Amino acid sequence: MTDLATKELKHPVDIAEYLFTRLHQIGIRSIHGVPGEILCAIGLLNRPSNDPQGTTTLSLSTTSQNVVCNQLSRIVHDEREMTGKNQGYAADGYARINGISALMTTFGVGELSALNAVAGAFSEFVPIVHITGQPSTVSQKDGMLLHHTLGNGDYNVFANMSSGISCAVARLNDPHQAAVYIDSALRECWIRSRPVYIALPTDLVEKKVDGERLKQPIDLSPPPNEEEKEEYVVDVVLKYLHAAKNPVILVDACAIRHRVLAEVHELVKKSGLPTFVAPMGKGAVDETLPNYGGVYAGDGSNAGVRDRVESSDLILSIGAIKSDFNTTGFTYRIGRMNSVDFHSNYTSVRYSEYPGVGMKGVLQKVVQRMGKVNIAPGPELKNEPHEDPSASKPTITHEWFWPTVGKWLQENDIVITETGTANFGIWETRFPKGVTAISQVLWGSIGYSLGACQGAALATQEKGNRRTILFIGDGSFQLTVQELSTMIRNNLTPIIFVICNEGYTIERYIHGWNSRYNDIQEWRFKDLVPAFGAKPDQYKTYQIRTKQELIGLFDNKEFSAAQKLQLVELYMPKEDAPAALRLTAEASARRNAT
Amino acid sequence: MTDLATKELKHPVDIAEYLFTRLHQIGIRSIHGVPGEILCAIGLLNRPSNDPQGTTTLSLSTTSQNVVCNQLSRIVHDEREMTGKNQGYAADGYARINGISALMTTFGVGELSALNAVAGAFSEFVPIVHITGQPSTVSQKDGMLLHHTLGNGDYNVFANMSSGISCAVARLNDPHQAAVYIDSALRECWIRSRPVYIALPTDLVEKKVDGERLKQPIDLSPPPNEEEKEEYVVDVVLKYLHAAKNPVILVDACAIRHRVLAEVHELVKKSGLPTFVAPMGKGAVDETLPNYGGVYAGDGSNAGVRDRVESSDLILSIGAIKSDFNTTGFTYRIGRMNSVDFHSNYTSVRYSEYPGVGMKGVLQKVVQRMGKVNIAPGPELKNEPHEDPSASKPTITHEWFWPTVGKWLQENDIVITETGTANFGIWETRFPKGVTAISQVLWGSIGYSLGACQGAALATQEKGNRRTILFIGDGSFQLTVQELSTMIRNNLTPIIFVICNEGYTIERYIHGWNSRYNDIQEWRFKDLVPAFGAKPDQYKTYQIRTKQELIGLFDNKEFSAAQKLQLVELYMPKEDAPAALRLTAEASARRNAT
Repeated sequence: MTDLATKELKHPVDIAEYLFTRLHQIGIRSIHGVPGEILCAIGLLNRPSNDPQGTTTLSLSTTSQNVVCNQLSRIVHDEREMTGKNQGYAADGYARINGISALMTTFGVGELSALNAVAGAFSEFVPIVHITGQPSTVSQKDGMLLHHTLGNGDYNVFANMSSGISCAVARLNDPHQAAVYIDSALRECWIRSRPVYIALPTDLVEKKVDGERLKQPIDLSPPPNEEEKEEYVVDVVLKYLHAAKNPVILVDACAIRHRVLAEVHELVKKSGLPTFVAPMGKGAVDETLPNYGGVYAGDGSNAGVRDRVESSDLILSIGAIKSDFNTTGFTYRIGRMNSVDFHSNYTSVRYSEYPGVGMKGVLQKVVQRMGKVNIAPGPELKNEPHEDPSASKPTITHEWFWPTVGKWLQENDIVITETGTANFGIWETRFPKGVTAISQVLWGSIGYSLGACQGAALATQEKGNRRTILFIGDGSFQLTVQELSTMIRNNLTPIIFVICNEGYTIERYIHGWNSRYNDIQEWRFKDLVPAFGAKPDQYKTYQIRTKQELIGLFDNKEFSAAQKLQLVELYMPKEDAPAALRLTAEASARRNAT
Repeated sequence: MTDLATKELKHPVDIAEYLFTRLHQIGIRSIHGVPGEILCAIGLLNRPSNDPQGTTTLSLSTTSQNVVCNQLSRIVHDEREMTGKNQGYAADGYARINGISALMTTFGVGELSALNAVAGAFSEFVPIVHITGQPSTVSQKDGMLLHHTLGNGDYNVFANMSSGISCAVARLNDPHQAAVYIDSALRECWIRSRPVYIALPTDLVEKKVDGERLKQPIDLSPPPNEEEKEEYVVDVVLKYLHAAKNPVILVDACAIRHRVLAEVHELVKKSGLPTFVAPMGKGAVDETLPNYGGVYAGDGSNAGVRDRVESSDLILSIGAIKSDFNTTGFTYRIGRMNSVDFHSNYTSVRYSEYPGVGMKGVLQKVVQRMGKVNIAPGPELKNEPHEDPSASKPTITHEWFWPTVGKWLQENDIVITETGTANFGIWETRFPKGVTAISQVLWGSIGYSLGACQGAALATQEKGNRRTILFIGDGSFQLTVQELSTMIRNNLTPIIFVICNEGYTIERYIHGWNSRYNDIQEWRFKDLVPAFGAKPDQYKTYQIRTKQELIGLFDNKEFSAAQKLQLVELYMPKEDAPAALRLTAEASARRNAT
């Protein structure tokens, strides 16, 4: 049956080739992960082509597929040393810069190791194509007692586990459906901006599917709104917008993840309305615009912001995720009567809900038609350190540090912050234009940012030349330290600030101020870089203990040029933390107790 | 309702106290993991007791519970720096030495990180009590948008994921059932020798349950066989045993995991029958007994063993797990007509199956009643290196190394081998008496052994004084390197041999001999120990490149005394591998292709 079908295909291509060509078409240049069972698929990519010129009709695809091979195989081979979780974090960081990413894992052992990272991507709307190898369909049917199995013949259990954290599951057991399944999974991944799971048994890797399909790119456009419905919603939004006396714009994570930043930028610029971001929306708005007002997060907002937002009579809220750590412990004080909420798949105006009306189309029309709106002046943004009681002291405090970082950052930097002090500190940093911020405020898995930094640095190494700058605590750094090795191996050049403050400051604020479980084993962080095999000309390390030293480092042109991997041990007091962290942790501790 | 019930309890104790007391009663002295949400439970353990003397009726339990507190809290606090997977591996290693272990993880991020390790324990029959924190039942009911959630209000998804790899799931949402659920889960964990999952919401930690129950220990005895059935099976077994001309005994993993080693030892000693072990059964039998014959694994068996086993007319097979890597790629040649199979919950004789008849009772009676059996002589065991073509060369080869290790090992050593060359090499090592072997032949997750080594070393630090010796490849070591830090922090003193052979030799044999994905970033392994903060008097490192150097090291009394953490970089040729590995890898590659 299969063989017969193969003969009927006009341009038969291997399933693995088909999949990799599709990944390339949607912009993926590196796959993260350990190939495991599908080693043969990787072998396939390395083997000399039998048809280097391509056939007449498929020449373009064939060429591009060769590009895939070279590009993809380069990276897959690099990341053997990582653990599944780290790979997943790296794929997450890569997707946030590149738009989408792919993660390849081994059956059982590899895929389960990656589940935490994939769940994080599901939670935070990051599109990762998770491809896992499987034993051959024959072994599966026979329930063979193979390594990497539970020993009970159940070959479905791992796919079932992934289904709860994937927006689509495609098990490629049948060549007749494989191409359709792949295309559909990749479209879902992109459109819903969440992970999908693709299982590829070893014996399917070289089974043939119809290569003709590859000429037609996968349609990645979001499903358009029903027109009459959209028109109606736009009218309602405009009615309230024009009636409002002091409307504001509040931008959050889903504006980034569901790709409406162009529309948001137009809205902010054209309307001139005071604009704020939620912590997870940092980087969504050009913070150098005069009408940008800072971070709104309830009690933890930047100075003056809370009053401005909460006294507004209409908040255009775009892509909100009102989670505890994004709202300083649910301290938003915005009523639904004052809100218009724009989301990827629905809009709501006051208490009226419009399911199926996505923000992209609505925002475009609102921008086109809004005309003049009322503007009440926003708070003036100084972007200066607050009055710092320790200003005259040499010790580096969070209150001083984060605004100071803002002055050192450059346009288009990638700024990554770890769950903990950094994720809250960054609220006080004003970004230059074009900065992308990466953090995991909702999922909050510690150690994430070092993996994500590796993925982001890889993505920008391929397609741009942006500085990648990470702020991570000493505790979190220990969880995914292997990534440093991967960075060295791939000649990546991030700047890594390890905040050395003797352990888990964020957890101390939640519970156990002096408990030993919030201390850490003291590492000599900078010694790790050569121990992981970095050559002397490949890296540089620093120890910074005072404000003056940090100012000197920021003034150092070689440092700021970021031409090699640089690791900075940045010493800060154990008990110091950004104000927003303190407020959020207190709320969290209260909730745990009830 | 709850408050009313609390008042009615004779001796109310907190659920957390109840749980920890039970863990202590079943022999657990350390919990592995990151406390996360249940930080308050840990706080509970540290707080000064209000009732240091205990009540009259509960004085013993109270005292022992205080012991729990001190012991448990010590370790929980130590392992903050580990990743979830590593913690799980450590819990696995701890359980294999201690009998059972506990793993505590944070909701979502922590528990998902541990799934690979827990699945491995499920696969390999290792009893781990996996306790996970959860947000309060109120937050769950309200579907709050908390950190560590998928953001969709679904608080069941993670428990559902764990259910596929746990033999029981207990969600402690109701104080009225909590104690019963805990007892039942712990019993299942022990009896079935597999992980169980216990979810503890933050607001339940200090809810009260009846402490009176604690006076009655949990019944951990295996369910007895139905007597008439058992008698029948014993008769059948004895009939075939007495009729056999050259019976042999073959012992495998489940004999260890289901705790019939005493019965096996009696059987082997009393019968005098030639006795062999499968690779996963290494350590189950006293290898210094004259009738111990070596490792049987089909084509990969020790010299002479295969003929002896396969020509036997009756194999008493105890606790077999006939997986690919345990049988050199399914190369057993044993017919069911020549087999008696003993398992924890069934027995089979030829094609007759006896479900529900567990081996413990049957073996006891068989030993009592067997009388004289026919013994055909087994192959003589020399435990000498094979003729080694490179005998005169200084390079250390696998063929020379593993038998040599056997001469250096001491009674009661704990020997841990990593998936890869070490797991196969150890087949050629003859153990002194009382050695426990730890490996993960079925699940085969690389990096496992470094975590397991940490757990095993911790268990023996608590309850014995056994040397803990690890053999791990340079590639696998990179995956869980953090464990080195945990060992330093806990003053553990394992001897770690890092086999430096430039990457993933086992994978080279399966696919991609020269592929870059089987290479690794070259680390300076011994430099990592001080970089992870070890003090100079706390550790020692070595580099060994020749046979002579290794012999010198083995003769070094200070080294062999294992009084500090010792790491040996052991250089071996990249292309060298144990013969059994080569045979198994070839079979695996063939199966991938079909």
